[in-house]
Amino acid sequence: MNDTQQKNIMEYETVELDDADSALVILDQTKLPAAAELIRLYTAQEIWDAIYLLKVRGAPAIGVAAAFGIYLLAKAIDTQDYDTFYREFCRQKEYLNSARPTAVNLSWALNRMDRVCRDNRELPVPDIKRKLKETAAAMKEEDIRVCRAIGEYGLTLLKPGDGILTHCNAGQLATCRYGTATAPIYLGQERGYHFRVFADETRPLLQGARLTAYELLSFGVDVTLICDNMSAAVMRNGWINAVFVGCDRVAANGDVANKIGTSVAALVAQRYHVPFYVCAPTSTIDRDTPSGAEIVIEQRPAGEVTDMWYEKPMAPAGVKVFNPAFDVTDHDLITGIVTEYGIAREPYTEAFQDIFRKKENGLRSGREGF
Amino acid sequence: MNDTQQKNIMEYETVELDDADSALVILDQTKLPAAAELIRLYTAQEIWDAIYLLKVRGAPAIGVAAAFGIYLLAKAIDTQDYDTFYREFCRQKEYLNSARPTAVNLSWALNRMDRVCRDNRELPVPDIKRKLKETAAAMKEEDIRVCRAIGEYGLTLLKPGDGILTHCNAGQLATCRYGTATAPIYLGQERGYHFRVFADETRPLLQGARLTAYELLSFGVDVTLICDNMSAAVMRNGWINAVFVGCDRVAANGDVANKIGTSVAALVAQRYHVPFYVCAPTSTIDRDTPSGAEIVIEQRPAGEVTDMWYEKPMAPAGVKVFNPAFDVTDHDLITGIVTEYGIAREPYTEAFQDIFRKKENGLRSGREGF
Repeated sequence: MNDTQQKNIMEYETVELDDADSALVILDQTKLPAAAELIRLYTAQEIWDAIYLLKVRGAPAIGVAAAFGIYLLAKAIDTQDYDTFYREFCRQKEYLNSARPTAVNLSWALNRMDRVCRDNRELPVPDIKRKLKETAAAMKEEDIRVCRAIGEYGLTLLKPGDGILTHCNAGQLATCRYGTATAPIYLGQERGYHFRVFADETRPLLQGARLTAYELLSFGVDVTLICDNMSAAVMRNGWINAVFVGCDRVAANGDVANKIGTSVAALVAQRYHVPFYVCAPTSTIDRDTPSGAEIVIEQRPAGEVTDMWYEKPMAPAGVKVFNPAFDVTDHDLITGIVTEYGIAREPYTEAFQDIFRKKENGLRSGREGF
Repeated sequence: MNDTQQKNIMEYETVELDDADSALVILDQTKLPAAAELIRLYTAQEIWDAIYLLKVRGAPAIGVAAAFGIYLLAKAIDTQDYDTFYREFCRQKEYLNSARPTAVNLSWALNRMDRVCRDNRELPVPDIKRKLKETAAAMKEEDIRVCRAIGEYGLTLLKPGDGILTHCNAGQLATCRYGTATAPIYLGQERGYHFRVFADETRPLLQGARLTAYELLSFGVDVTLICDNMSAAVMRNGWINAVFVGCDRVAANGDVANKIGTSVAALVAQRYHVPFYVCAPTSTIDRDTPSGAEIVIEQRPAGEVTDMWYEKPMAPAGVKVFNPAFDVTDHDLITGIVTEYGIAREPYTEAFQDIFRKKENGLRSGREGF
């Protein structure tokens, strides 16, 4: 299937099982924006490659892909003996986990599936397999519910016609539906809000240009691509009413680690009196990390910055490169942190207590989020 | 000649006449950083192409290249009759000027050469040709003197070991020697200051990666390349003691138009209490423009942002793009404006009066700058 921009992004599932329950189907993100290609993954090797090669990316999407993947591999284990089954399950689990060993959501999802086996070890193996499938499906539904709730809360911060700046891809492609930072945009689009969105291209890997601009455009959103260093020019023109970004980790004091350049957008927003919102599932709020100072920033290879230019070298051979994957945005620059249980504002430590109280109550009552 | 990084940048002349007085020799900037290639230009067509195709770029360098170029073309006019000579001179001048009609320095330089003809019309044609050569050479010497003076003043703002951030290319390659923003770096390097320089790559056209990193590296400067959105991460680490940038135009109140992203670097510098200096020959200070609000910003083609990526499209087909070439940095973000007659500080209107008084005195006394 190769039908770039003939369908909108909501018509694709980022991650799903096929109807025959035999393959994991994903939208191959390495082919975007040139082609929207659904690929079917059958074997452990194919699933491992898809995660390793970033065909599926974004923490929530990786987690759900791994959950469906390990279910498919477990289903194929041809035994009625639990110990034999579980030994093989663990072998496959370790293999998938090795695809991106530092991706927290990958091991988190696989461990949750592991627990399903262990908690149900007294059941017949076919029943365990059924429970694995139900759990993977529940994880996907949970991700969609969380994103939708973030979208509803985020939408309360916007009015029709607003200009919105976003950075990197915290979009549908990084989740199972709606995305986080893009969720208010999609919900608003469905309700005729006619936002004007500006997408930072997001150097060095251009997730904004390749993914965010692609998915918003496919959904009919009015989106304009800019280089990261153009945010001040755009805000100076008065075109932006709010910035919405995702996040990788939120510290207890509200400091946020997100894609490199996020804090620069926040500084520009402050200068031009534009509110700056971070969309964060509560799963990303790490109350054990006191502040951004304690967050270790991953350094990535120089070649991402120097070696991707067309035809000619884009930098002199041998030049030193500093290429941090993330930066920290101080909480004083953040107008609000939008979660599936409401919007946290300064002081964040107290606000997060409220959010997590609502979460516990919601989980107990079976209701989640908005 | 093709000897990338075997020589340092100071061993090249950006623009010069060859010894036989027969060709304009330039360092072909479109080949950098892959190859440092000197090319010889003999004909009007070759000179026009070099300017049009950005083989020579940077306002001061273009001006001097045009001056030497029109001299070579005038020299070849085979007549002793002034009117015949001047008619042909004007034809060649208009042709060269059409290479980049919006480049102010191009027409400024050609008009200065034109004036040499008209002011000396009573002289024999060979004497006019000699005066044209002297004038072009004087323009080059003047550019070098101005850059060197800016370097000396700029160096008083720095101490050995300082970390310096720069944006775009206001380097030797944009001038006849030293550059403007890079002049303090080169002078410091010669005096053992051991600066650590961070160069913004400068999207979309990557002048920082392709040109600034190249020329500093060739001179042995400790230079690290970053993406534009990494400036906050670098400053947060405490690595930057000062920002030095060039400029395209300074308004009467000290607002500065320079390469897109300059104002973003200034905002980041303010956040991290890093002084922000603009290096500006007095020729770029436009006291007839009251503030940055009156400076019209050139918009450039979408393809610069979307179409230069390796192998795969870097943005979805048909996406809208906003691609301003410059932005305005408000004067309150600028710690000082370094000219060849000293450093202007707030309030800039008054400071510029002092600077221009010194310039007039200097010109009268035959001394220029530092």
